[in-house]
Order: sequence, then C-alpha cells, then structure tokens
Amino acid sequence: MGKSSSTNKLKIINDPVYGFIKIPYDVVFDLIEHPLFQRLRRIRQLGLTYFVYPGANHTRFQHAVGAMHLMGLAIEVIRSKGHHITDEEAKSVTITILLHDIGHGPFSHSLEHSLIKATSHETLSLMFMEQLNHAFGGELKLAIEIFRNQYHKKFLHQLVSSQLDMDRLDYLKRDSFFTGVTEGVIGSDRIIKMLNVLDDQLVVDEKGIYSIEKFLIARRLMYWQVYLHRTVVASEQLLVMMLKRAESLTSEGAHLFATPALAYFLQRDHELSLDQFAQLDDIDILASAKSWCKHPDTVLSMLSDGLVNRRLFSVELGDHPFQTERVYALRESVASSLSISAEEAEYLVVSDSVSNFAYSDMDDRIAIMDKRGNTRDIAEASDILNISVLSKTVRKYFLCYPRFIKELN
Amino acid sequence: MGKSSSTNKLKIINDPVYGFIKIPYDVVFDLIEHPLFQRLRRIRQLGLTYFVYPGANHTRFQHAVGAMHLMGLAIEVIRSKGHHITDEEAKSVTITILLHDIGHGPFSHSLEHSLIKATSHETLSLMFMEQLNHAFGGELKLAIEIFRNQYHKKFLHQLVSSQLDMDRLDYLKRDSFFTGVTEGVIGSDRIIKMLNVLDDQLVVDEKGIYSIEKFLIARRLMYWQVYLHRTVVASEQLLVMMLKRAESLTSEGAHLFATPALAYFLQRDHELSLDQFAQLDDIDILASAKSWCKHPDTVLSMLSDGLVNRRLFSVELGDHPFQTERVYALRESVASSLSISAEEAEYLVVSDSVSNFAYSDMDDRIAIMDKRGNTRDIAEASDILNISVLSKTVRKYFLCYPRFIKELN
Amino acid sequence: MGKSSSTNKLKIINDPVYGFIKIPYDVVFDLIEHPLFQRLRRIRQLGLTYFVYPGANHTRFQHAVGAMHLMGLAIEVIRSKGHHITDEEAKSVTITILLHDIGHGPFSHSLEHSLIKATSHETLSLMFMEQLNHAFGGELKLAIEIFRNQYHKKFLHQLVSSQLDMDRLDYLKRDSFFTGVTEGVIGSDRIIKMLNVLDDQLVVDEKGIYSIEKFLIARRLMYWQVYLHRTVVASEQLLVMMLKRAESLTSEGAHLFATPALAYFLQRDHELSLDQFAQLDDIDILASAKSWCKHPDTVLSMLSDGLVNRRLFSVELGDHPFQTERVYALRESVASSLSISAEEAEYLVVSDSVSNFAYSDMDDRIAIMDKRGNTRDIAEASDILNISVLSKTVRKYFLCYPRFIKELN
Amino acid sequence: MGKSSSTNKLKIINDPVYGFIKIPYDVVFDLIEHPLFQRLRRIRQLGLTYFVYPGANHTRFQHAVGAMHLMGLAIEVIRSKGHHITDEEAKSVTITILLHDIGHGPFSHSLEHSLIKATSHETLSLMFMEQLNHAFGGELKLAIEIFRNQYHKKFLHQLVSSQLDMDRLDYLKRDSFFTGVTEGVIGSDRIIKMLNVLDDQLVVDEKGIYSIEKFLIARRLMYWQVYLHRTVVASEQLLVMMLKRAESLTSEGAHLFATPALAYFLQRDHELSLDQFAQLDDIDILASAKSWCKHPDTVLSMLSDGLVNRRLFSVELGDHPFQTERVYALRESVASSLSISAEEAEYLVVSDSVSNFAYSDMDDRIAIMDKRGNTRDIAEASDILNISVLSKTVRKYFLCYPRFIKELN
Repeated sequence: MGKSSSTNKLKIINDPVYGFIKIPYDVVFDLIEHPLFQRLRRIRQLGLTYFVYPGANHTRFQHAVGAMHLMGLAIEVIRSKGHHITDEEAKSVTITILLHDIGHGPFSHSLEHSLIKATSHETLSLMFMEQLNHAFGGELKLAIEIFRNQYHKKFLHQLVSSQLDMDRLDYLKRDSFFTGVTEGVIGSDRIIKMLNVLDDQLVVDEKGIYSIEKFLIARRLMYWQVYLHRTVVASEQLLVMMLKRAESLTSEGAHLFATPALAYFLQRDHELSLDQFAQLDDIDILASAKSWCKHPDTVLSMLSDGLVNRRLFSVELGDHPFQTERVYALRESVASSLSISAEEAEYLVVSDSVSNFAYSDMDDRIAIMDKRGNTRDIAEASDILNISVLSKTVRKYFLCYPRFIKELN
Repeated sequence: MGKSSSTNKLKIINDPVYGFIKIPYDVVFDLIEHPLFQRLRRIRQLGLTYFVYPGANHTRFQHAVGAMHLMGLAIEVIRSKGHHITDEEAKSVTITILLHDIGHGPFSHSLEHSLIKATSHETLSLMFMEQLNHAFGGELKLAIEIFRNQYHKKFLHQLVSSQLDMDRLDYLKRDSFFTGVTEGVIGSDRIIKMLNVLDDQLVVDEKGIYSIEKFLIARRLMYWQVYLHRTVVASEQLLVMMLKRAESLTSEGAHLFATPALAYFLQRDHELSLDQFAQLDDIDILASAKSWCKHPDTVLSMLSDGLVNRRLFSVELGDHPFQTERVYALRESVASSLSISAEEAEYLVVSDSVSNFAYSDMDDRIAIMDKRGNTRDIAEASDILNISVLSKTVRKYFLCYPRFIKELN
Repeated sequence: MGKSSSTNKLKIINDPVYGFIKIPYDVVFDLIEHPLFQRLRRIRQLGLTYFVYPGANHTRFQHAVGAMHLMGLAIEVIRSKGHHITDEEAKSVTITILLHDIGHGPFSHSLEHSLIKATSHETLSLMFMEQLNHAFGGELKLAIEIFRNQYHKKFLHQLVSSQLDMDRLDYLKRDSFFTGVTEGVIGSDRIIKMLNVLDDQLVVDEKGIYSIEKFLIARRLMYWQVYLHRTVVASEQLLVMMLKRAESLTSEGAHLFATPALAYFLQRDHELSLDQFAQLDDIDILASAKSWCKHPDTVLSMLSDGLVNRRLFSVELGDHPFQTERVYALRESVASSLSISAEEAEYLVVSDSVSNFAYSDMDDRIAIMDKRGNTRDIAEASDILNISVLSKTVRKYFLCYPRFIKELN
Repeated sequence: MGKSSSTNKLKIINDPVYGFIKIPYDVVFDLIEHPLFQRLRRIRQLGLTYFVYPGANHTRFQHAVGAMHLMGLAIEVIRSKGHHITDEEAKSVTITILLHDIGHGPFSHSLEHSLIKATSHETLSLMFMEQLNHAFGGELKLAIEIFRNQYHKKFLHQLVSSQLDMDRLDYLKRDSFFTGVTEGVIGSDRIIKMLNVLDDQLVVDEKGIYSIEKFLIARRLMYWQVYLHRTVVASEQLLVMMLKRAESLTSEGAHLFATPALAYFLQRDHELSLDQFAQLDDIDILASAKSWCKHPDTVLSMLSDGLVNRRLFSVELGDHPFQTERVYALRESVASSLSISAEEAEYLVVSDSVSNFAYSDMDDRIAIMDKRGNTRDIAEASDILNISVLSKTVRKYFLCYPRFIKELN
C-alpha cells in the first residue's frame, strides 16, 4: 500500500522559487503521492498571514518539496569537501527533510497549542513517519533515526534541524518570496556552498561569516515584519478564540455544523486519534467558520465573521503586560455593547503575549570554522552582531478587541 | 452599509509580482474590504492547476488587485500622451477592473458551466456590481456603464475588456510567476507604455509591435503549457464529474454531507440565488469532497478521493474525437471492474474537448498605430505571426479514465 | 608558456546572469588567464550599443565564460538522455566554445569589415586557437577539429555553431540582461533541457516547441530593439567613418597621434599581422579618437568628437535605398556649411544598408523531434510562425548626416 | 555650449537595475548630453574590481543616472508626508545628485590620492559644477548651494550626502547587481519609503528600523566582499605604482608614450588644470599601460603587463603592519631576482593599509523617528547591532609582491 509501481514517474516539479526541482528517488516520488503528504497541499505555510500579505497562500507541500531540493544541494557540497555520505544516508536524510513537517495541523503554527493541545507538530510528524515506514516496508527506518537524532552521524540530523537546517533556509526564502517582503530574501545557495563538517558537526567556512550575519538579520526582519506582525497576531487570536468558543458551545450541547474531521476535535475530551488528525486541514476550519457566521451565538458568529470576511480585531502591542483594569474595563464595555456576559466577552478581548528567540546559544549554535580547522560560535566570530540579543527571548504583549470599541472611544 | 468611514486606511499592499501597490481611492479601499470582494481570497485563480504547478495557489483577490494596479499605470500613460481622462472616469474604470471578476465561482473557470449553468461569470459580476452600487449609494454607476460598454468613451471599456486589457496583462504575468513557467512572463509595463488612444480606440504605438508579438506568443505558450495542460484538464473533469454525481445522488434522495452553501446548489432545479452564490467558494467544494471520500456510492467516493488525494484520471489527447466504440469499451471495462452500471461508468470515462482561441480578429483586434496616425491590425502589421492561426479555434479532444484501467491493459 | 602550474586555482566566477560559474577544467583556467583571452576584457560585447543602453558595457570575456557555463549544462542534459560524450570530448567542446570569439577585434562586429578587411572574426579565432594549441602542447587539437566541423560527431560542432548553439543562448540572455530590454530574455535553461541528439544531429524534444517559438520571437525583438537600433547603427557609422578618414589622412602623410597598436592598422597596405591584431582592442580606438577631437582636419575632428562626446548623426531608416539626388544634395549642403570638399562630405553623409537574417532554413535548421523519433523543421512544426519571414534577409537602408543639417532645414 | 534647444528630447533611459528611468527636466537632459557628463561613460564605477568580478564594468554615468532616479522617488515620498519641496528645489537637488560625482578621475577612487594629489573628487565636482553653472546661465546656482550645504533646508543636502543619501542607496544596489554579489542587494525602494523629515533633518520612520539594520549589514558585506577584496586592493596597488613609476621616469627625462591627457599629469609639478583633468579617464591609463608593457624599464613594464594581462601581485592581509625586516628582505629578493636596485624594488613590494568606516556616529547619524516624533540614533534604536563596531575604523594592512617570489619560497 502506498507504494505504486508506476514506471512513468514525474521527474520534475516547477517551483517559482528555485525553478526546476528534480525528484531524486522513486521512494520520494511515492511519498509525495501519498495522501498524508498530499494533505499538505491544504495547509497554508503561514496560517493567516495572507490577511496581511495576500500572496502568502503557499503551502506546507511547497515548503517540504523546496527543503528537499536544498538538501540535495547540501549533500553535494558536503561530499565535494571530502566528507563521505553513503547513498543510503543521502536518500534517508532527503526523506527526513521531506517529511519533517508532515505533522502540521490546520494553519500550521496558528493552532498548534489549541486544537491538539499537548502534542507538538514534531511528535505528530514522527508518528506519521512511523505509519509511513510501516506502509513502505521499513524503507524509512534510517530517515526516522536521523529525525530522532539517534543516528551516529549527527551532522545529518543538523541538516534537518539546527540553526542552519534546510527547513529554515527554505522557509525564509520562500516566505519572503510569497509575501513580497523582498528584504527577507536570504542567499540560501551561498550559505549552502559554505557548509562543511568538522568532528561530525555542521559548520560554516570562515568566509561565509558575512552571509551568516545577513541571514540572522534577515530572519529577524522576517520575524517582526511577517511572523509576528501585529495584524497576523490579531488574526490568529480570532481563529483560536473562534475554535475555543465552538468547543465550549459543543460541550454545552449546542448543535454546530462542522465538517466531520473538525467535529471530532470539537468534542471536549476527545482522544488524540492520528487517523482523525490526518483528515484535518485548513479546509475544515474555513468551511465550518463560514457556516458559523450566522450562528445565533453572538460570540461565535462575530469571531467567524471576522475570520471569513476579514473583520479583524483592533490590536495594541507593548513591552509589558496590559493593565488588568484596562482589560476588565474593555470586556465590560464589549459585554454591555453586545449584551453578552463578561465570560463571553473574554473571547473578544484577548490579552496575551507572543515571543520569539531567533538564535539561542544554549543548545544549538552556528559554528564558524577557520582555515586551520578551529571553530568559534558566530557570537564570537562576528564583532558586529549582539548575538546575546538574538538569543534572548523577546516577548511582546498584545491586546485585541473588537474594532467597534475603538470607534466608540 | 459597506461604506466604512475609517480615516486610517491601509494604503499599500505588498505584492510579490509588482512590489508595493497603492490603493488609489477610499472607495476602492472600502470595496476591497467588502465581504463580496474578500470572498475572492477563497477562489483560486487557476482552479486545480496547483495539482500540476504546486505554486499556483494564487487567488482572484490577488489578480483583481494586480489588475487595478496596472490600470493606474495605463491611465498615467494615456494621460501623458495628451488624452483627457477625468478624475471621475479614472476612479470608475479602476473600480470596473477591480470588480470585473467578482462574479467568479469556485475554482474560477473550472465550474463555470457546471454548477451555475446558464449564467456566465461576467453576468454574475454585473449583478454583484449592481448590488454594490446600491450599497455604496450609487458611487459605482459610471463603473458599471464602462463595464457594460455603454459609456461614450469606448477606450475605457477596452482597458477592462479587450485583447490588451489590464485583466490579461495581469493574469498572464501573475500566472507565469506563480506557476514558475517563467517563459510566459510578459512585459506588461512595456506594453502599457506603448498604449495610446486614437479615435476613441485603444491602440498600440508602432514601436511596440515586437512586444505585442512576444505577448501573443507568450500567451499561446501559457495556454498549452498551463491553461490547457492535459493534467489540468483531467483534474477539472474529476471535479465536474464529482459534482454532477453529487447532484444526481441528491436528486435521487440520497443524503450527502455538504456545506450549507453547496447544499443549495446540489438541489436540482434550484433557482439562481445571488445571495447563495455569494456564499460559495473553493472551500465548500473541497470540504464536501473530503467528506465524500468514504461515501458508499462508488462513483462519488472514487471521484472525491481523486480530487482530495490527487489520484487523477489517465488522460489522452487528440486532434479528433475519440472513437465511440473505444469509449464504450472503456466504460464497460470500468463498469465491470467496479461492479457499477454503464451509466455510472459515464462519470469515470469522459470524452470531450477543450478549445482555445487566443486571438480573434472578428470583434476585437489589436490595432497598431504608426507615426502618421494610421492603424493596422497586428495581423497585417506583423509579418512573422500567422495571426490566422492564433484566431482560429484550436480544439483538443481528450479522453479521461481511471488510472487502473491503463494498468489492466 | 601560457601554462601556469599554480595549484591554487580560482574555481568559481561570480556572474550577474547565472550566479556562480564553476571553471570545470585546469586547462580552461589556464586559457582564461592567457593574455589573448584577457584581451577580451577590453572588447565590449555590443560595440557602441552603450550609447543607447548605458548598461551595455559587458565584454566578450563575460560572454565567453557564460557560453562555457551553458556548455556544461548542455553536456549534462545530453548525457542524461543516453548519448555518450567522452570526457575528452566534453573538455574539448568546452574549450571550443570558450575560444569561439577570441578573434573579435575592437567593438566586436562594428569594425569587422573595416579595420581588418578581408578576414572574418571566425578565421581570426581559428588562427588564435592554433597559436594557443601550440603554446599548450597540442591540448587544443580536438577543440579545433570541433570548431572546424571536422570531428565525426557533428552535434558537438552544433553546440558551438548552429541555430541553438551555446553562443546564441548566452548572448541573447546576456544582452537582454545588460541592456535592460527584459523582453528579450530567453529561457536558456529550459531550451537546454529540451536538447537531444538524433542521428548525430542536435534536435529539440517536441514539448520544447513553444520555447523555441518564444526564442525566435525574442531574438527578432532583440534584433530590432537592440542590434539594429537606428541610433546604434548611426554610432557605428561614426566609428567606421572616423577610422576610414584616419587611414586616408595617414596615407596622405598626415601625422596622427595613435596608440602603437592602432598606428599599425592605419597604414594603408599593412599586412595582416596576428601579433599586431592581438594588441588591438576598444582602448586603442577610444584613446586615439580622444586625441583627434582637436585635429585640424574638420572631418576627422568632427567624427571623433561625435564618438567621444556622443554627438551622433541624425539617421533616417527606410525600406528602399535613399535617392541619390538627395544624398548628393545633403553632401553639398554639408560641404558648403563646413567649407570642405564634396569628397570629404562623403564621410559625413553616409547612405548604406544593414541586414539581418534571424533564421535561415538553408544550411542550418532547428529540428523538432517527436516521440517516435521523427524530426521536422520548426518551420513545419510550428503553425504560428512564418519561418519564411525569419529566414528572409531583411534589409534596412539608412541615411546618416550631421545633426546640424536637420536644424538648418 | 552645452545648452541645446532640441525639442525632441530623449525621455527615458533603460536601466538594468530599475527598468525605465524618466529624465525629469529639460536641463537634466542637457546636462547629461554635456561632454563633462558623457566623460563619466569612460570611468568605471568600481575601478579595477572587474578583475575579480567580471561583471563590474558599470560606469559612473550609470550610477549618476540611477541616483537621480532615486532622488525623484525620495522627493515624492517626502512630499507625500506633508513636507513642502518647491519645484525649484526639486529640480536643483536632482541636478546636485546627478553631478555629485562629476569630479571623479580615472578608475574612480583607485587613483584619488595619486594622480591628482591634493584635491578630493568632491572639490573637483564642485569646480565642474561651477563651470557648468556658467555655461547654463546660472541655472545650477541652487544646486551648488545644496551641494555645499549652504542652503537653509539642510535635509536637501542630506539627500545628496549623508548616511542614507541617494548616492549610497544607488551604488550599493548597483554594485551588488553588477558584481553578482546578490547578498549585498539592499531594498532601496523600501528605505526611501521610510524616509521622513523632522526639524529639517532627514530621518527614518520607526518601522523602517529592520530595513536600516539590513542596509548596514549589507553595506558591511559589500565592503569586505567587494570594495576591500584583497585582489581588488592588489590590483589598485599595481595601478598606483605603475603611474608613480611612469611619473618618476618622466621626471628623469625618459621618453614614455602617453595619451595627451595623461602626458600632462605625468609631468612632475604640473599645475592642476581643470581643462586637462576633464580630458582624463580610464582610457588614457589603459592605452598608455598597454604601450608600456614592452618598455625597457623592468619595473614599468612589469607593472604595466600586470595591469593589462591581469598578472596580479600576491597579497597578504593582516591586522598589524608587516614587519619592516620582512618587507626589506622581500625587496632585496625582488631586486636581486630582477637585477634592479632596492629603490626600484619599492614599486614591486608594497606595504600599506586600507581602512573602512561604515558608519560614523560623529558627524553624521541615522536618526530613527518614533510615532511621537522623538528621534534616536540607530545605535540606540537597534538592540542587535554593535554600531560602535560599524563606526570604528577597521584598518587592514596588506603586503603585495610579485607572484614569482611566492613560488621561489
């Protein structure tokens, strides 16, 4: 199952970012054809970012194929510098990167700690990989070892998950491309050319130092200009609150239209079913939200209408938590305007925080290798970047509330 | 209604194709914010083309905004050549192009003659425009006149709908961009710079002739490489047949899960309700299809599974209709393999044709103007292009059937 | 000589058009370092085109390296389609394309039939290749055979010189890039992917037909928009006439400042000396022209001033030769205005023609191969292009004269 | 006389970097046509950088036109933010930026403190501007005031000369483009959109802070990867030493071929003649160098051959001055190998330094303006950049010597 024996396989995918992408192995072709992978076509890479950047409709499918392409380049570069990678390793690490995000749910990160509460997308990816390994007769065994960092050549795992993995190199480039934030564009090909291996660690040749500086700055720019854009944050809150309200109403016994896949997850105390999760994607959320726009519950219909018709929250950002009094006052104001309870107003006036750490020197570093084979962390090697700033978690507090409140003031 | 009085309006949209796009008028801002226009965010510009070109996830929303941007450039060029366009006309023709596609249904052209049978998307666009005109207190009156070609300055209509309208100039460029078929890229800015007006007709300055030739060739390339790509055609048949089957089952009284918006249109003999149509988009189709994958009806579940999991038909192309005997034989083979009736097999073995006429010299020409103010049709002005070929309808016959059949042979 | 034994060779060249270009062989590195090849850094690819397109300062050096890069891609594609190319053949055909233009003189084509009268640049390239072959101990033997089309695998020669050779694929792309005429951009990578070999002939796979059509149209566009641009033609006449006048004055015994390399060629009846020619490049012409701006000879100083300070001729274009009477009258007018003789006025009023044949079906065709291995010429395979037009020589007549004349009229 | 009255003026220039560039004023057109400006076509923007990056053949002409284009955008942005700029001011500041580099000599910065010893290119630009002002009947008066920072609206001068002037915004973008160092590309259009004016100072809107960070990092990357590239430095030393040797030989009475313009500057103790300087450009240096390759003086011919045939010095870089003993020993070794004197060997073994300060907080800062209209220096506003590093002069010591020495060791 899952393994087709077609002899006439598609060999090339057209990608607006890199041009022609070759599918390097038959098994990769078969994995791409599998429903679990095809599902990624229905999950937007950047969640609701398209509300701010209308071009950001690209999917996890495109990203996974792009990262796979970069992996091919990286393998070629590392081999050309005299490091041995067997064909089996090359194939497996290619599979690992292809599938690294297969556990993402609807709208990628937006709902990560919402619908599926206690389980990260990495864990879900692993569970899907094991399912696929079974379907493919054990052919993904090494790929899974690499993913779990249990394979003895550690640098292979680092190509999949580290500060300079193919995941990041693809998504930064791809997200800049589709949002049109051209300043976020990174020289992924240049960085890959500078990759090397020392003592089983992925390192960067010394003359790549300026490219790395630029990569870190571009990443930071993308964080503030795209990933944590205030309007994107506000949109995500709309989505999170809408589903929370739907769950609450369901648990109270209300009847809500929902697609079968979503219906399962709206039941409070549902078990995590991998099969159910495999049915769930952006479509379920949007289709259900559309039907909720006219639901009699004021809160649900307001949030759904916001999501469907892009009537977004007002949002304020700050470096400190917003004052409790103010939040309460806003809730009261909303409650009285809409004739709802104070508890219900909590869905509409949201105070929380987002954070980002762009570079952490704790567990995971970018090592620069000089000509004599000594390595230093980029934090030392670069005299211009305050890496301590990059590694420090920056937390932004936000306060969202319905737009009509602003106008009342 | 519809008219917000926000004073702090978004002024700029980031577009991967053109960079920054300014929103030129407040009314345009308000129209973009309207639910009818926001709906275009949920309609893919190229239907199911993303099955072949994974980047083709761009929407009618993006296209409409892009065409609006080009209109601004065209107005500037035409004015700079001494032709008077009043501010009111400029605003109105900008609105016209913004809304020219607002009547598109799910997957754009794919379902145009299927779900909504007797009504073209242009007619629906007009109906929506009139609705919006009402909501905006008559502000769209002139825009509608231009759309209907009832305004005395005919060249304004031609900017919206003709061989060189802003619609085409945007979609060719945009579709090449997102599919990654870079050869289809046209020099829309160069062509716009060559636009002129003579005797109230849109014409092209003589030195733009090579750009026009290239435009026509690029358009042709896009037709064969993208718009009429065999796999795209096969995907669309899957979609059309799936909905046809769902309608048929519904009329026979079967219970089918469907989103509310789609449910309405599945009823045989429903009236055309503009309000219902305004609720319908790609999401409804996909969400319903997902739920049908496990439907007991073999035909429906097979077609739905094909659409959801990209298990496409085999497809053959030809210059002549396929032999009836062969089609019948295939249907029988499918019927017996799947234990379904011959009538049911008609949903799975489809023989039909697609056609394209890239340039028609009948009603609508590209006029080239020389320095003395004489015009000739591009068919005469260009010695290299067989415009007769371009203007001739090319019809391609196709035959689609389930992939397993091929493997049986 | 010429062969350095440096072990630390530059491996990569940064090219604005293709990005990183690898130098594939040591001998190629050594050839690039040779003074005969370095000389190409001082010869502009497009002669005086920079008077019209200020970006067109790119050199024969850049073009030769770019064409070498494309050759590497083509070899890879052809090998991947199962055709054997030995390493020796690959290296040699790479050398051939690298050196195919090494015989170009100052300003590339502009002076081809002027300074060096009876010898084409191809012949000069061959002479230089033979000189280099001697210096490199016979290592270029096979490269020269391929250049002369004396090697039994004819398709290797076609990669260097035919309708779809790497020369053309590079120069069209490069010239569009640097002139900024983006519409001339061709999909050289796509075309190369479509190359194949049949019966020892270079052919194009059938599905590449639209790319070929686009290539032919783009080439035509470049001809009329760049290569035969009226102002470029006028600039070249200035250059040709200036040198003709300098030769004439020299033969009459006048003393003219000239760089040593140019001084040799100004002597009437000089022999063709390859060593002297190897010293000559754009620099010699421009340096000498600068010194002639104040020469007492009115004709010489006027032409030189035109070239140095971009005071170009007025130019008229037509489909027929200009009337002799009009030319005579213009010469008389110029002669009397400047108090020079009628013979001298011939340098300032020039009536001649340029021609172009973009595609000739005589000796050299683009063969399209269908899936069954049958080939047809593109003229048959494409229904839209009048290839007969492309293959027909188009001749344009021009008439150049000093700008002040126009103002007198 | 500079001022033409042609009515049929070229309106648009094609630029590979920005596309179409409009010439905004008649006087700008006339200035571009003037021989002093046309001379910039013969001065490469990046001196000898084309020895390392073969695409770097772009000229001061292209840069000046590009900077003029950006000025138009900046004026539009600043006006749109409510700051008044009169038409006269707009025209004048456009002229100022167009002419800001008109005083550059051959190979731009390479010879700045060599041929023309005591006079900076800015001073020479001013002298030329005054000459042009005379020729244009006083039309450049305000442009000159702005250039000298004597006009009361100081921000206009800052658009021409400051940390974020149009000069820098163009040259960084252009130099990345033509070298192919794509990572140096800056978002000049985005930065310009963020420009604002506060208290007559050019400032940057707060949300532009990430763009500015990226700009500073890209600039640093360009410095080390292009402007101070070791091989570029070595090439410049070759050029400087060659001319120094030529001067020395001339002063000793030797006969050297030189173009008339260069001959003047080779005479020791020549006065600075603006007219002579106006005749001098890259061509003079290269033409003379070509003739010196066979000069009997070993030092001169060796240096000239190096320049003409790209036989560059070996170069070592270090953070400290090289030891005097080592330099002396190298000179002796060179002297004895070539049978020249120790003084002569000083031309061939060069020990010196280059430095760069990318951002100086002394006289000139980048001010970031927040929403309340308070400004902070980028050094404070950005938490990630060690601006102190950027503002500190980095000095690199280099040691150049003939390549054969290395091989002897």
